[in-house]
Parts: sequence; C-alpha cells; structure tokens
Amino acid sequence: MGSEALRDKVAIIGMGCTQFGALQETSFADQGLQAINEALSDAGIEKERIEAAWLGTFEPNTGGSFEGYAGDFITDLLSLPGLPVTRVSNYCATGMDAMRNAAIAVAAGLYDVVLVLGNEKMRDVGSRDSLIRQVVTNGHPIVQKGLSAPGMFALMATRHFEAYGTSREDLANVAVKNHANGARHPKAMFRNEVSQETVLNAPMISWPLGLYDCSPTSDGAAAAILCRTDLAPRLTDEYVLIETIELATVSSHRYFRQAESLVGFEATQLAAQNAYTTIGIDTPINNIDVAEVHDCFTITEILNYEDLGMCQKGAGAKFIAEGRSSLEGDLPVNPSGGLKSFGHPIGASGVRMTYIIYEQLLQRAGLTQVPTGKNGRGLVHNLGGPGSVCAVGIYHRP
Amino acid sequence: MGSEALRDKVAIIGMGCTQFGALQETSFADQGLQAINEALSDAGIEKERIEAAWLGTFEPNTGGSFEGYAGDFITDLLSLPGLPVTRVSNYCATGMDAMRNAAIAVAAGLYDVVLVLGNEKMRDVGSRDSLIRQVVTNGHPIVQKGLSAPGMFALMATRHFEAYGTSREDLANVAVKNHANGARHPKAMFRNEVSQETVLNAPMISWPLGLYDCSPTSDGAAAAILCRTDLAPRLTDEYVLIETIELATVSSHRYFRQAESLVGFEATQLAAQNAYTTIGIDTPINNIDVAEVHDCFTITEILNYEDLGMCQKGAGAKFIAEGRSSLEGDLPVNPSGGLKSFGHPIGASGVRMTYIIYEQLLQRAGLTQVPTGKNGRGLVHNLGGPGSVCAVGIYHRP
Repeated sequence: MGSEALRDKVAIIGMGCTQFGALQETSFADQGLQAINEALSDAGIEKERIEAAWLGTFEPNTGGSFEGYAGDFITDLLSLPGLPVTRVSNYCATGMDAMRNAAIAVAAGLYDVVLVLGNEKMRDVGSRDSLIRQVVTNGHPIVQKGLSAPGMFALMATRHFEAYGTSREDLANVAVKNHANGARHPKAMFRNEVSQETVLNAPMISWPLGLYDCSPTSDGAAAAILCRTDLAPRLTDEYVLIETIELATVSSHRYFRQAESLVGFEATQLAAQNAYTTIGIDTPINNIDVAEVHDCFTITEILNYEDLGMCQKGAGAKFIAEGRSSLEGDLPVNPSGGLKSFGHPIGASGVRMTYIIYEQLLQRAGLTQVPTGKNGRGLVHNLGGPGSVCAVGIYHRP
Repeated sequence: MGSEALRDKVAIIGMGCTQFGALQETSFADQGLQAINEALSDAGIEKERIEAAWLGTFEPNTGGSFEGYAGDFITDLLSLPGLPVTRVSNYCATGMDAMRNAAIAVAAGLYDVVLVLGNEKMRDVGSRDSLIRQVVTNGHPIVQKGLSAPGMFALMATRHFEAYGTSREDLANVAVKNHANGARHPKAMFRNEVSQETVLNAPMISWPLGLYDCSPTSDGAAAAILCRTDLAPRLTDEYVLIETIELATVSSHRYFRQAESLVGFEATQLAAQNAYTTIGIDTPINNIDVAEVHDCFTITEILNYEDLGMCQKGAGAKFIAEGRSSLEGDLPVNPSGGLKSFGHPIGASGVRMTYIIYEQLLQRAGLTQVPTGKNGRGLVHNLGGPGSVCAVGIYHRP
C-alpha cells in the first residue's frame, strides 16, 4: 500500500510557523492567521490563489467559540467565501494527515494551490476542559485506572530497560540533546540547555520518566502552501517536493495484547516501510540527511530510531550515545529541539515538524542548520493515539 | 473552483446502512462494523481489498472509549493492520466531506478500493456531555444567549415569513411529506405518518418551529466502498458513479452581518453552483431525478429548494405545496423521509443520504422508489455549522 501515485507530484512553496509556547495574547484564529500569512509571504503569492484548505486540529477546546470544529474561521479570516476547507483530526498525527489529504487533492489535479493549517491551543483551557480531564471523563479503560500518557510511555521504557539494558541515563541523553538544539531555535518554547544531572534529578512524573523526559503542553500553529510540482518554479524560486506521506493505523488495543512486545510501535514500522518502499530506499542511513521525529517522551525518540530503521531494535540508546542523532551526527534527529522544546499542540505538530525539515532543506535553519547537501532529503514522523496511528513523510529539494 | 478532475473517476460499488434510532444495544464500533459489513457484502468483495479508509465522526462522545477520535477501531475490527484511516470532522457536513476526501484519493490513483464510514452515536451520552451542553459550556456567543439550533433556524423562518409570506402551514407540509416517506423506509427512526393538524398543534420548540418541525436526535452509521471507475465492472454488476462532490465554506459569523438576508444559505448556493458547473447543467429541474437534502428543520428544506435552484428564491413553499418534491413530483426530495425521519447522527448523515440516492439509482428503494430513469442522476446535500459549510454531491448510473 505505498503511495507511488503521490511521489514528487506536489511541492511545498511556502511555510509559516508561530512562536510555540503559552500564547495567551493570541486567539486560536489569530495564531492560525499568523502562520498562514507567513506561509503566503514565504510563497510570494496572494491569498486569492488558494483554492482549497485542510485544517488539522485535534480538540478544538478554544473555550470561547466554535473555531476549530471546522475551517470556516479560515474562510472568514481570509475573506474567501466558498473556499472548501476540510478538518482532519487523527490523534497526534493530525497535522501530517492534514498535509497528506491536501497533497492527495493536488496530486489528483483538483486544485493547483492549497493551504494546510495545523493549529491547536492547549494552554487556554482550565483543567476541567483539559485533554487529560476529558479522557478521564470519557472513561478510557486504561486512563480510568490512572494510566495517563506518561504512564503509558513509561511502560514502554521499563520494558526497553529490561529487554535491552537501556537506562535513565540513556533517556536523559535525548533530553540534553533536544534542549541544546531547542536553545538555538528562535521559535521553540523552551530555549534553555539542561545538563544530564538536571534531567536525572528532576521531579519524577511516572517512573522512569522524570519532568525532563516529557514534552510540555503548548499552543502553536504552522501552515504550508502546496502546489502542483510543475507550477512551483513559476510561483517561487525555492521549494521542496513531497516524495511521499504514508499513514498507517493499527489496533488501538495494543496494551491488552500479550503478543505485543511493547518495545516498539508497529504503526511506525509499517508507515516507514511503506515510505521507504515508495521512494526506493532500504534504510534512512546514508539516504536521509535530517529527521524530525515524534519525541513526546524521551523513550519515544529512542523507540523511533529503531522503528524508523535508523538502527537495529534495541540499539537506540547506543545510537544517541554515539552522537549519531546530534547536530554533528550522520543523521541529525530533531535539530529543532523536537516536541521536547516546542511542546506538542496536537494538530500543529506535524505541520511544524514539516516546517523544520523545509527550512533545513532550503538552508534556512540558522543556528540549527545541519548539512543537507548529500541527499537533499528529510524525514518527518508523527505518532498518535496509544501508538495506533503513525505518519511518515519524506521531502526533498528538487 | 469546480472539481472537474473528480468527474466520473470514482464508482460506489457497495453501500451499507444501519437502522437509525436510539441504538442502545450496539456500541459505536458495533454499529460502524454493521454498516461496513453490509457495504462489503453489497460490493461482493473481501475486506482485504480495502486499501485505505475515511471516517466521518463529528463528536466522538462515546462515553466509554477513545473510539471515534481516530479510525484505529476500524483497523482493529477489520484486522487490517497498517490500513491508513483518516478522520474527517466538518460540522454537519462531516459525512459528505469524508466521502469527498476518499473519492479524491481514488481519483488521484493512490488506492484502487477504499472505505468510507459515517458513524455517530448521540443517544448514549447524558445531557452533561450532549452537544447542546457542550456548546453552552464552550461559550459560543450566540448559543450562550439561548440561541440553540432550533432558535437559529427559527430566525431564518420568521425572516422568510416576512419576506415571502411563508407560513407555519407551509412548514408543516414538509413534516407531513417527510413523515409519510419515512413511514415507508425500513431503516428510518420514525415510521409514522403525521397530519397537518398534528404538526401545527404540537408543542412549540422555538416559534415558529414546533416539535414536528425539528429532526430528532439519533444514532446510526452508513458505509460506502469506492473504487476506480474502470475497476468497478470487474468487481460488481451494479454501481453508481460520483459525478462530483463540492464543498463550500463561508464565514461562520453570518448572524452578525446586517448585509445577510437570512433567507438563504450562501454555502449551499456556492456548492450547488460549483456542482452544476462541473457537470454542465444549469438547474436541477429536468436534470436530476431525486434529491436527499439537509432537512434539520422544516424551514431548512424550503430554503434548500431555493438555494439548490429547484425554484426561485421565495418560491420554496409553493414548490412543496404543488407536490413537486413529493414521491410523485417531478423532483422528489427526501424520499427516505430525510433527517426528519432518520434523525441526524452528525457524521453518519451525509453517507446515509448517499446510501438513499444509491438505492434509488439502482432501483432498490422498495416502497420509497421514485422514477430515476430519465436522467439516472441524484443529488445529495449536507449543510453544517451555522450555515457556514455545505457539500453537494451528484451521482449517476453509468
């Protein structure tokens, strides 16, 4: 089930991204518009060129309006009556799945130029409306028993410790690297380095995950302008091509299955395999120059190295210990600082991660720039739900 | 912004639909599976042929699980690990927009066979989690002041009364017709005829809309199997082609705009115009044999006649009074009994309405069958939000 028909048919000609953090001065719509305007300006096109849009928002708990339940606020802000806007909501892979559906529509020839907006506000609502409160109210059988997101990922960590000898020190390496990277990125929420000692001595959230093993809660928006590849050079000088975006969904009941190993995510493995097959590579090593992966927790980044085939299963801790995923490594991972530094406003993250790869491939990443000249190719990875949904996108310079 | 590239590229080779109503014996996942299995059986294909899926669910308040927040329950129920499933959520047009995105992906050549599931459960949750309660909690500026859905549509009715002399008796004609039709459809929630007198003397909800002017709250699911048109005759004997599905979004702030006439929905007008342009017709009259339109309230069906160009603006009451939209009329509207008889489980409705047109075009509509031989063409219309989102689909027998 590869997406050969999508390959290189669609270009990203402009992107925008807000500062991430507790954006209490801007509304949901305002932060969305900020990202859209930056993307339009980057693409150098008028808003009237936009023929359709896809909005990625997971939980529109904006506290004050219907904004985010659908995309009519985009139509309203841009004054484009009649614009078709689809809202996609797909757990934590919402942003990339919005990108995927938009890219498919361009590849189908329905539209020449479309907009993607990933937008989420998570800091405006009180605890009564928070995501955690909602899942408790809604009564998920695991969450009811006190297994929050840190609790679920902690189980993966302890199992990985047992199976492969991974340690809290290995997890801390991820936090130290991503904080160091985030400190260099002007749009990150956290821009401070942390030491291994700070990470290891931080308050415990759910053993073995301490405070610095968890990504923070933040607001943010990111936008992309996509167009037909043959149209791209006529509209702009610099752009990036979508080689593929693969989505894979597996059972959400993994935690009940004794057969599950709990040391990896099948959804990631399947999405990555489909992506590599589609573009004709065996491994990301030597084929991909830079990756943004879903580090909701430090253990997740280590699992991602393995599930994405950057190293063998069980060798994730060694991969980072050897510096291979650092800015100076042979496959830098999360040069932006990742979810660890940006937080994870759910619908925004996948588009924000694409923004990071876009600026890396176009050599605009400033202090976080890594060499992308070898293959001119970057990877984005979004993981959602209880590991049940994954999207992998691969992008390259033409 | 017509969707010429979609035209006739995609076939519907199987559909399924649950009984609609208060389905308290079946879970959200169960009712979804029931619709999927009926669609697979109708198409005569194995589930393994499904390469991707789109889920339309507006508000997954299933009360007991994460089901509906994403489509992993589909992957799980069908045992198809890796299946890409996108969830679309777009107000009351959710079902048709899921159909639209699925059709686009087939037209793009990414997949040969895909599944669409519209699924919503609205009777399982108590009033604390109900849609009305949520919008009150979330604080929409209109809803906060007591303007519920009946209240908002009542404003359209009184304005139509003032502008065109439409009356409560005219609205009652819609309820009488749709109840009579629903009484004949085995899957409707309400299967009882009502008299004009009963409708007019029913308890008032929001003047001039009485109890029988409002569609009920129900549970339900409907599913479709789509494939490439050239593949359809190899898979099945009977199928229907998607001529187009158009989505239009306008500002959600219509109620604040003095310039708005309040006697019609711009989103419907734009989506219909795009659809007619795409397939090369000027008017549905003499070109379309049957239509399922969004009759959330009786006034809405009258506005839809006008906005869809079945008659002039202001002539909607006359259109039904003359029997033109009845089963025996020249353009039967809601032969199923519409939302009035099926209720409106939000994400399911658009797919359920497509199911009705599918069975009409294939001469399988039993007691509700109307002549569809003249053009072999039917229309589906979904309206969402405060009139801000509309989808219009046109389907025909090959």
